[in-house]
Amino acid sequence: MKKVTKKLNASIIIIGNEVLSGRTQDVNVASISNWLNQLGVKLEEVRIIPDVESVIIKTINEVKKIFKYVFTTGGIGPTHDDITAKSISKAFNVQYCYHSEAYRILENYYEKGKFNIGRKKMAKMPKNASLILNPSSGAPGFFVKNVYCLPGVPIILKSMLGGLKHKIIGGNIILSKTLSLKTVESEIATPLEKVQNKYKKVEIGSYPFFKRGKIGVSLVIRSDKLKLIEKCKREIMTFVKKKKIKILMNK
Amino acid sequence: MKKVTKKLNASIIIIGNEVLSGRTQDVNVASISNWLNQLGVKLEEVRIIPDVESVIIKTINEVKKIFKYVFTTGGIGPTHDDITAKSISKAFNVQYCYHSEAYRILENYYEKGKFNIGRKKMAKMPKNASLILNPSSGAPGFFVKNVYCLPGVPIILKSMLGGLKHKIIGGNIILSKTLSLKTVESEIATPLEKVQNKYKKVEIGSYPFFKRGKIGVSLVIRSDKLKLIEKCKREIMTFVKKKKIKILMNK
Repeated sequence: MKKVTKKLNASIIIIGNEVLSGRTQDVNVASISNWLNQLGVKLEEVRIIPDVESVIIKTINEVKKIFKYVFTTGGIGPTHDDITAKSISKAFNVQYCYHSEAYRILENYYEKGKFNIGRKKMAKMPKNASLILNPSSGAPGFFVKNVYCLPGVPIILKSMLGGLKHKIIGGNIILSKTLSLKTVESEIATPLEKVQNKYKKVEIGSYPFFKRGKIGVSLVIRSDKLKLIEKCKREIMTFVKKKKIKILMNK
Repeated sequence: MKKVTKKLNASIIIIGNEVLSGRTQDVNVASISNWLNQLGVKLEEVRIIPDVESVIIKTINEVKKIFKYVFTTGGIGPTHDDITAKSISKAFNVQYCYHSEAYRILENYYEKGKFNIGRKKMAKMPKNASLILNPSSGAPGFFVKNVYCLPGVPIILKSMLGGLKHKIIGGNIILSKTLSLKTVESEIATPLEKVQNKYKKVEIGSYPFFKRGKIGVSLVIRSDKLKLIEKCKREIMTFVKKKKIKILMNK
């Protein structure tokens, strides 16, 4: 179970007072996580932190040593509360300055005379950072060593993941099968634990749900080996049938 | 700006492989954060971590020293992957055992003969923990010192916050006003920064949005002093009018 692939793990740092204050619902974790699953990289931690320089620097310095890949979201726009690029520069102890390629991209993106100070700010980043191109709205993201900085706006972030893909060295794709049952967790806890103890290389998650008046439990079986998932699922099916539990979904 | 009320801050630890894997969208952060805003407690960090005992122990031991209040969500159900109570016991170095009151609550909740091993597990928690009552589904949460453990199911978690309210010592309620403008961030970045620099005790967040083909920017002004928020908003309105920017929302 709980296989910790030290070399192919990742962390996301969401930089944003708006998420901490409860105003904005983050949806970027799910987008990045599903994309990482396809690349065989396991997301092992997420942190949501405020737009405070000292906190960003401390957090980045901590996580960049622990995880193979670190993704940040938010704080790379033109306003005063966008301090990610400056903070990352300080975390890596490099100059925060204009990136010539980013400057050129932005200069071309905006009409003549419209490339104002706020827009120019988006070309400032850690010295020698590599760009992450932005097919939606011009302003690129960037990465320094293993820290990849993306914007917070979900639609723009998503559009940038495609171009980033080839920069990530991945592993075996993490597969999953789901079995939804018309039961409650406490009815199946004991036999389920036995199956989990037998298949230690498979991760079985048990998630109760309440949807439109219906209650049930979704069992999610995850591994990078399909055969192992299917073997494990067959054993679960055995006790499910024995207990005459109705199967709501099997995929 | 960025006022750090050291004594009245909080952290949330989301314990759940299902959120990390991208399968489940967390919504508990917003519920807890909005509830904390009303109590005058500032949420300053969120971490999403896996269902791994060593990670839970390490994380709890780290954050319980930094923040006044720590809330955990998830992992207090009856199945094998519910390891929060056991891990919290280890973090506080106390016995993991049946809580007599929790046991009684659960025994009464279930019909005679239905109080099985899985259900009994939900009465096990750190020795001398205090209960957080659950008006939705019987099984209580608990707290040890400044660590409050809540379930992961959003509807149940929400129902438990009311009863928890009087256990939290709060401060001044954090207020906010929002101004949505038909503009882009880079058009207002410079004058907005001037206002922010003038009102350092007010936090101004700038959030671009793209909704149903409409683009705009929401400015969120936050402080525990309404007069200061309004003064600050008036100064923003001055440059908004000067630039002839359309106001989409003002509340």
